[in-house]
Amino acid sequence: MKSYKEMNKEELELLLNTLEKEYNDILKLNLDLNMARGKPDLDQLDVSMDMLDVITSKTDLVKKMDYRNYGILDGIDEAKDMFAELLETDTDHIVVYGNSSLNIMFDQISRGYTHGYMGSTPWCKLDNIKFLCPAPGYDRHFAITERFGIELITIPMTNTGPDMDLVEQYVNNDESVKGMWCVPQYGNPTGVTYSDETVKRLAALKPAAKDFRLFWDNAYMIHHLYSDKQEHVLNIIDECEKAGNNHMYFEFTSTSKVTFPGSGVSVIATSPENKKDLLKHMTVQTIGHDKINQLRHVEYFKDVNGLKQHMMKHADILRPKFEAVLKIFDEELNGLEIGTWTNPVGGYFISFDSLEGCAKDIVKACKDAGAILTDAGATYPYGKDPKDSNIRIAPSYPNIDELVQATKLFVLCVKLVSVKKLLKYM
Amino acid sequence: MKSYKEMNKEELELLLNTLEKEYNDILKLNLDLNMARGKPDLDQLDVSMDMLDVITSKTDLVKKMDYRNYGILDGIDEAKDMFAELLETDTDHIVVYGNSSLNIMFDQISRGYTHGYMGSTPWCKLDNIKFLCPAPGYDRHFAITERFGIELITIPMTNTGPDMDLVEQYVNNDESVKGMWCVPQYGNPTGVTYSDETVKRLAALKPAAKDFRLFWDNAYMIHHLYSDKQEHVLNIIDECEKAGNNHMYFEFTSTSKVTFPGSGVSVIATSPENKKDLLKHMTVQTIGHDKINQLRHVEYFKDVNGLKQHMMKHADILRPKFEAVLKIFDEELNGLEIGTWTNPVGGYFISFDSLEGCAKDIVKACKDAGAILTDAGATYPYGKDPKDSNIRIAPSYPNIDELVQATKLFVLCVKLVSVKKLLKYM
Repeated sequence: MKSYKEMNKEELELLLNTLEKEYNDILKLNLDLNMARGKPDLDQLDVSMDMLDVITSKTDLVKKMDYRNYGILDGIDEAKDMFAELLETDTDHIVVYGNSSLNIMFDQISRGYTHGYMGSTPWCKLDNIKFLCPAPGYDRHFAITERFGIELITIPMTNTGPDMDLVEQYVNNDESVKGMWCVPQYGNPTGVTYSDETVKRLAALKPAAKDFRLFWDNAYMIHHLYSDKQEHVLNIIDECEKAGNNHMYFEFTSTSKVTFPGSGVSVIATSPENKKDLLKHMTVQTIGHDKINQLRHVEYFKDVNGLKQHMMKHADILRPKFEAVLKIFDEELNGLEIGTWTNPVGGYFISFDSLEGCAKDIVKACKDAGAILTDAGATYPYGKDPKDSNIRIAPSYPNIDELVQATKLFVLCVKLVSVKKLLKYM
Repeated sequence: MKSYKEMNKEELELLLNTLEKEYNDILKLNLDLNMARGKPDLDQLDVSMDMLDVITSKTDLVKKMDYRNYGILDGIDEAKDMFAELLETDTDHIVVYGNSSLNIMFDQISRGYTHGYMGSTPWCKLDNIKFLCPAPGYDRHFAITERFGIELITIPMTNTGPDMDLVEQYVNNDESVKGMWCVPQYGNPTGVTYSDETVKRLAALKPAAKDFRLFWDNAYMIHHLYSDKQEHVLNIIDECEKAGNNHMYFEFTSTSKVTFPGSGVSVIATSPENKKDLLKHMTVQTIGHDKINQLRHVEYFKDVNGLKQHMMKHADILRPKFEAVLKIFDEELNGLEIGTWTNPVGGYFISFDSLEGCAKDIVKACKDAGAILTDAGATYPYGKDPKDSNIRIAPSYPNIDELVQATKLFVLCVKLVSVKKLLKYM
């Protein structure tokens, strides 16, 4: 296909005319499609339905302890064991929570703000606090720190993770930099897994702030799309310990996209000293999380191997969806020089970069024709993409037919908006 | 029985000798008893086991919405309906949470500290914040506010609730008083239900601080011991609205002591404006709570009537325990003038007041002989009972035999410590 950039004005105007006709035809269809959020679809939720039969009125819930009663702040032993194995660490690093890892992250930020970590000054007593935000990144991460008035510093993402020169420059020199958001494997939305070198450089940071923490959201650690093409980020716990930065990380994961979002189990891994500090706060906050649901999960999966096998069922459902989107992108956009996109082998997203200044218009054109995408800009701090080019595509929720329809509409809108843009500057 | 206070030195010394022998005999038994926490016992937990059969792999979980997926910040409609009916209000006042009402309370205090309520100044930006703490009261309430460096002001409890003259004096004149802890029905540990006049005076407060809130922990609202002797505190929502103080309360309750502690459902009721303010924060904190567990509860109880009938099963288990303790108190302590105690018709506790300066020694003597009680002082702010006389008795967890044994040990220790005390000042 001929690159749009090589077209002259007449060619572009002719093209625009055709594209507008196509778009107007689609408008008449009154579509109602959604590629906005990384939600599992119905089939994926059905995959875990038999977990609901694991615990019944006949189950012995009074074993080592009574799982039905109060108590156990850091999670039942069985769940700590399973998550310790999953995160390749010891149970003294593990606290198992309720249904939301986002809530754990929020609570850690809130605790840093009100009480500080391991004796450091609470952030609310300091004038200026900064967090590094690799972008494109996860909007809900940025929203938490923004809510606490923390200054968000954009760090560009590369194919190997965040721009490490810039990260080192900030963290090692600026005492007001207290943390950094990371989705280190199959990143949201880039799909990028941090390279070994990136992880080693992160673990070897020499933070100016003693209370600097990596917020290591390993949300997609077992969310592969293929059994034979899998990426695995280095273990941040080991790397930090090797570098003598034992307390520098909070690692998070959950079963939200393994069993049921909203009814899963979430976990934090951190140094035993951090854990002790955290539990001192948590013991005032709650008597404990849902132990029956923790047990339900462990008895269902038996062990980490069961968990990983289960994830292949999700992969079988998700893979065709990713491939369908990428096939249309390849067929319709290759060579046009109006966009680039990622080819992830895991996670929940495809990241699309349009020509500069086009993302908002593309998302609006899709919306007007009945397809909701994640807001343009959402993948950047404060919702402001400086180039107005990144769009997060979430292929998981619609069924294949809807997805194909939505993707075709999307590429049409990309073409339409790009042509207009090119004509404008002609 | 002859009052100890009327005994002369010789009589007391003789008595001491007998009591010490009795105590030494008990020491040899190596007892292991616990009357410390308000935990349901095994039989009470068994009462709800069939709730675990309500939702299975065969249940249709995709009705008005998919209960398994992300979403719904303020709780599923069915749960909001049930709790609105229970709390006699509308669903626009209701947010249904996860498993812990204590966690909701903590989050509200934390939010007041970091962001303030409805536009008020965050407490962390102010020099001094005070909370009123009716005492004896609930140690975990006091601990939350203490954790945030809030000054705890002790308000004496009476038979009709907190000393209202003192409450009005503080709240109406001191802008730094931002809240007040209340367990308004079958209070922890007094068993007292606030009188109508107390509730009306609370609702009609004219707080110097615009962001003053009643933390109305209606934990025991349906936790009656008798079907024919029931107390019901006035509806704080209605009373506040009548008095024009629409936003002055956060009401809390949960099913922790209805179904399973740790695996229940909790709720906050507050004005729609407070709710809106709260959700603005919560939408950054989490995507939502466990909707399947919310549905499990609603489908199990069907409606509030089902909930209330269920509570009578708990009453049948708890009532004999309370009566066993009170019978021993009556038989062993009546007329001795060494202690007074409450006769609650609901809730989880009996409150015992010893002679001044004896509570710590009684709790220690019990512990040394193998019976754990709530720490003396725990029912007061900072764990310091100025008279060292209040002891919280929690009869729910031990079985009847253990309870009788523990209570007999307790009255023995009360006698022993009281005699020593009386002798000391002779």
